Amino acid sequence: MVPRILNAPEGASPLLHLERQILDASSEIEHWFRSQWLSHTPPFYASVDLRNAGFKLSVVDTNLFPGGFNNLSEDALPLAVQAMSAAVERRCPDVRRFLLIPENHTRNTFYLTNVARLAALLQQSGLEIRIGTLIPEITEATPVTLPNGKTLVLEPIIRSGNRVGVKGFDPCGILLNNDLSAGIPAILQGLEGQQVIPPLHAGWSVRRKSQHFACYSKVVAAFAERLQIDPWVLDPYFATCTEVDFHARSGEACLADQVSTMLTKIREKYALLGITQTPYVVVKADAGTYGMGVMTVKDASEVTNLNRKQRNKMAVVKEGMQVTDVLIQEGVPTLELVDDAVAEPVVYMVDRTVVGGFYRVHAERGPDENLNAPGMKFAPLAFDESCMQPDYASHPDAAPNRFYVYGVVARLALLAASLELEQGRP
Amino acid sequence: MVPRILNAPEGASPLLHLERQILDASSEIEHWFRSQWLSHTPPFYASVDLRNAGFKLSVVDTNLFPGGFNNLSEDALPLAVQAMSAAVERRCPDVRRFLLIPENHTRNTFYLTNVARLAALLQQSGLEIRIGTLIPEITEATPVTLPNGKTLVLEPIIRSGNRVGVKGFDPCGILLNNDLSAGIPAILQGLEGQQVIPPLHAGWSVRRKSQHFACYSKVVAAFAERLQIDPWVLDPYFATCTEVDFHARSGEACLADQVSTMLTKIREKYALLGITQTPYVVVKADAGTYGMGVMTVKDASEVTNLNRKQRNKMAVVKEGMQVTDVLIQEGVPTLELVDDAVAEPVVYMVDRTVVGGFYRVHAERGPDENLNAPGMKFAPLAFDESCMQPDYASHPDAAPNRFYVYGVVARLALLAASLELEQGRP
Repeated sequence: MVPRILNAPEGASPLLHLERQILDASSEIEHWFRSQWLSHTPPFYASVDLRNAGFKLSVVDTNLFPGGFNNLSEDALPLAVQAMSAAVERRCPDVRRFLLIPENHTRNTFYLTNVARLAALLQQSGLEIRIGTLIPEITEATPVTLPNGKTLVLEPIIRSGNRVGVKGFDPCGILLNNDLSAGIPAILQGLEGQQVIPPLHAGWSVRRKSQHFACYSKVVAAFAERLQIDPWVLDPYFATCTEVDFHARSGEACLADQVSTMLTKIREKYALLGITQTPYVVVKADAGTYGMGVMTVKDASEVTNLNRKQRNKMAVVKEGMQVTDVLIQEGVPTLELVDDAVAEPVVYMVDRTVVGGFYRVHAERGPDENLNAPGMKFAPLAFDESCMQPDYASHPDAAPNRFYVYGVVARLALLAASLELEQGRP
Repeated sequence: MVPRILNAPEGASPLLHLERQILDASSEIEHWFRSQWLSHTPPFYASVDLRNAGFKLSVVDTNLFPGGFNNLSEDALPLAVQAMSAAVERRCPDVRRFLLIPENHTRNTFYLTNVARLAALLQQSGLEIRIGTLIPEITEATPVTLPNGKTLVLEPIIRSGNRVGVKGFDPCGILLNNDLSAGIPAILQGLEGQQVIPPLHAGWSVRRKSQHFACYSKVVAAFAERLQIDPWVLDPYFATCTEVDFHARSGEACLADQVSTMLTKIREKYALLGITQTPYVVVKADAGTYGMGVMTVKDASEVTNLNRKQRNKMAVVKEGMQVTDVLIQEGVPTLELVDDAVAEPVVYMVDRTVVGGFYRVHAERGPDENLNAPGMKFAPLAFDESCMQPDYASHPDAAPNRFYVYGVVARLALLAASLELEQGRP
């Protein structure tokens, strides 16, 4: 199924034109990606949030520690296994044992189901997997029963010299499914002879969305030039403010300026293209995740008139991390609907391959709001057709074609992430 | 669905023990394959015929120019696209244009549907594809209508200097889906700057099954040693006779000797293991294909008492090629049944990945007969579960596990084929 797109009567949408261009150039595009991967290493895995506005199709967030593998449809799993095998083979063909380090959410069984899924996929790709937890309270192997009746065993991580493992298990690779929001734990610092994947500097204590989007802009610029399209169609404007303190209300002037400037830029662009939507920007923590610390703003005055509750919400993100660096990003309304609820596609990639995705759906949110919020649901069946099998004979709007295009745009972010990690290498 | 296995009551079959061993060692096995692919390049694609006797599970034929991609289930296609992308990336990342050279069967619409499927998969993996034919009568682009209503355009191959192409299309890679039974055509000899895949010496004018099975025995020996199993369980005995002339009845003594010796060996092995089946051998052209030039023999006297019809059948294979080299191979009865008809699994691989498979089914043949014969059918749904997702918690007989094991054995032949092509390199 392809979700309905609001306000986009067939044939009238400029996006269909973009989709047609991408389909027509698919061999050129695949060739270009292949050549990019000769000099850049993709992240082991990533998921990206896309927004399809009808007139614009853009990545709005890239997650290098994707949860939600349990949301993927069964059809996606063999692809994920194949891509994980390829990723392991390319990085560390000698590796046989992986330690998987998940987030510290022991009570979030939804997340733990993701961990179990991930462990199963890694095992099926031919690795021995054990799960090592950073939770200090877990001092011995602890089985956790999942909603599906299966059991996941969390084990305390043991450091011996410059290596980590769990009892009786000395892994060659460490796969992080923990975004290190709380900082890089001492136990993982200074490891030798063990590859940490993704690298430690991919964690949120180091990573900045603005660096990602700077890389994304570069990638999109090169891609757009090849396809002779306006890069703006794929790339949201962004700006940053640093040294913001929402509690102390310092840095508000920077925020108001940036918001105002960006709204003007969007307004001008919309006017030029005859787009009648109301421009908005999204203000979010430059290092935040989990949909925390995100607000939609339609006027600069909104950021200077935050009430206490709003300020509290913006000031602190996951693991109690204080927000000082703020990203101001052009808002891209999502015009996709699943069962009359606003939806945005989330695309999952492993190594250089799109393995699947789903729709994040929120019945109580508007098309210009953050959907990654309590009450969100997932429509895992939406991507049951492959992202890799465009049907050249069909309309650009046909499911395999729309999903192929989503996969191409998602891979632009994947390439951006690889540039970002190269630049950030300590 | 897993086909029923005849005469193999649950838990009683030695094969279940082998399947359990393979499942338990899967991370070791995957690691071993990864390390093998570091020093060997898998064929671009291959299909293998397996036979599961309950007490023995063996490859009996390996095809380096697989047709029948149209028999694969829809679920297999994204995996095939992903594997083809990886194959292209590894061999020739700069390549964008592939010329696909099919067999010269213009009237076999079943085969042409395979060509169309293959072309679509290659296109989806990001290549520009044109189809160049070796048929001398085709002197201009010729559309052929397929049973599904789609059109395939066959174009005459044009040689310019040391390159080949079709009108207006200078390809970087040449993908052969033509087994070159009739010899290596002059138009493909001495090419420069164009990679021919598989290499010309993979064609049946050069290739010998006996060389393949010699390599297969080596691979199985190494694998069996790792797993501490009897290699015979995976590896059929084989022997050869050269300078056989079925018409002139020369070489019959060699055949009778080899058949007799092999039947004795099988009889001894069966006695040792308490197997009550009747031993048989398969006599086949060492360079034959399409199921032509194959006979089942249970007694040496059968090869010295061939009637004219049988001799005609054995003497000539595809493209009128005369048979002089003969392979004598231990017969492996297939004990699998699909809808009460005898069945054998055919596993398809692209690059190093098992992408799918199906059952070849023949209602009028016995468990010890060649099923690749007129009247055969295909059960494409049988492999709809993945070959890459063993379910460790289930019985070895469960579909994902049986198919995983089939995929492992098929990959032993894939590795054998890569050794074979290395050795045969001119």
